[in-house]
Amino acid sequence: MDLDIKKDLTSSWFKTLQDAFCDDIKKIENNKTDFKSTNWKRNKLKDEGGGEYRILKNGKVFEKVGVNFSKVYGKFPKEYKKNIPGAEKNAKFWASGISVVMHMKNPLIPAMHFNTRYICTTYDWFGGGMDVTPSKVDKTEKKDFHNILKKMCNRHSPHYYTKYKKWCDEYFYLHHRKEPRGIGGIFFDYKKNNFEENFKFVRDCGVTFQLIFNKIIQRKIKKKWTMKEKERQYVKRGRYAEFNLLYDRGTKFGLQTGGNIKAILMSLPPKAKWE
Amino acid sequence: MDLDIKKDLTSSWFKTLQDAFCDDIKKIENNKTDFKSTNWKRNKLKDEGGGEYRILKNGKVFEKVGVNFSKVYGKFPKEYKKNIPGAEKNAKFWASGISVVMHMKNPLIPAMHFNTRYICTTYDWFGGGMDVTPSKVDKTEKKDFHNILKKMCNRHSPHYYTKYKKWCDEYFYLHHRKEPRGIGGIFFDYKKNNFEENFKFVRDCGVTFQLIFNKIIQRKIKKKWTMKEKERQYVKRGRYAEFNLLYDRGTKFGLQTGGNIKAILMSLPPKAKWE
Repeated sequence: MDLDIKKDLTSSWFKTLQDAFCDDIKKIENNKTDFKSTNWKRNKLKDEGGGEYRILKNGKVFEKVGVNFSKVYGKFPKEYKKNIPGAEKNAKFWASGISVVMHMKNPLIPAMHFNTRYICTTYDWFGGGMDVTPSKVDKTEKKDFHNILKKMCNRHSPHYYTKYKKWCDEYFYLHHRKEPRGIGGIFFDYKKNNFEENFKFVRDCGVTFQLIFNKIIQRKIKKKWTMKEKERQYVKRGRYAEFNLLYDRGTKFGLQTGGNIKAILMSLPPKAKWE
Repeated sequence: MDLDIKKDLTSSWFKTLQDAFCDDIKKIENNKTDFKSTNWKRNKLKDEGGGEYRILKNGKVFEKVGVNFSKVYGKFPKEYKKNIPGAEKNAKFWASGISVVMHMKNPLIPAMHFNTRYICTTYDWFGGGMDVTPSKVDKTEKKDFHNILKKMCNRHSPHYYTKYKKWCDEYFYLHHRKEPRGIGGIFFDYKKNNFEENFKFVRDCGVTFQLIFNKIIQRKIKKKWTMKEKERQYVKRGRYAEFNLLYDRGTKFGLQTGGNIKAILMSLPPKAKWE
């Protein structure tokens, strides 16, 4: 398949998914709170793409949720290109993706994160994943979440779940605190060759995340919580901010490729505490 | 002078200063709120030093203030030693220092930061500085703060103020947002040779910071503030957390040399918001 067609297919899918997620979120908010949408360009002088980030704040259910779409292209900065497969000798790149971070008002509902992306340098590959960060232990929720992920992965390969779960556990880990960010999920990167199979898997990830976040939220949307639980959530969010600023690959990618600051840091919690 | 004597003199001074700062802070709190002090060791199995961090929280004036003393020694991890002057070939090091971060309840009073340290590898040198981060513009305060610093620097060398002010402006800068952390101050590092002169300057920095924080606080301690100003402070603190996690050299040094997590991250604000 022609690379241009691949780019069109993937970026269209990410855009469609952004709409689908936002529709669901608005429905959960009974259509009483809306997203604020911002379009941005990577370069004001010449066309290097850009994106649209949508943020909904202070909802009844979502304290802050960002749904971010981007399609950017150009050249990697000198210092950065050595870190990117296939860009060592040719700094040209094209990248499109969607990322979602949900910070919930009810501290019994976990923070949820999803991201998928398609990147072209002299190679082209998919990356992405999803993970869940509760501030209170809930074994049923954890089991259910991982079961759904396992089933989804098995639809594509019997090897995916074990591999991508492990990758997730290793990636979403706060080394300085020696603690995991949350209850894990799946994470994958540099998924190249076999575009059609991989794209099918990536689409399934999107649809599955939609199913997951709706399910997790509905289960607890009416559960009462205490101020003590809310305080624990603020502290857990401090850890979330630490991870994103100290380790996150997407944050670094964005900051170093001239992405939009607000779109990149959309993942930071609305309010966090450090003890 | 013998290196062991230098180590004793500097670490004793940092320890004395820790006491002096804490006494002043307690006095500002009318002795009604006290520090919680924690001693920690770098290595449980063998003596590699450690430190004592003191945190006071939820005072009438200080929302959170940490005063941190440490004296650590041992070997730098392989990956880290190449970043440290004089440690490329011999990873052995000794380091002692004091650091202070003040997050104030009254949003009209700026956050204040101070640090001085003495580090020995195959060389030995001083580093440190202080800077001030208001969430509301106050030209008088800025002018006064820089005047005091300038006078202090000039007592030691006519070149220091210009040089160290510039270094501070460059260091405490949020590149991703293209904005300075606050109103600057002074910053210096790798100050070697001439131990006695340098140590005199470093002691003057400590005494001067004591004078500065008392003055800044007294000027505004009774000023009324609004919730809007408090909200602005929370957002400014989000930037503070970003700086410390994305760029701060001391944070990286601590995290990568097996320092105490709570002591290292003591600088993070008690509560922060992201818009």
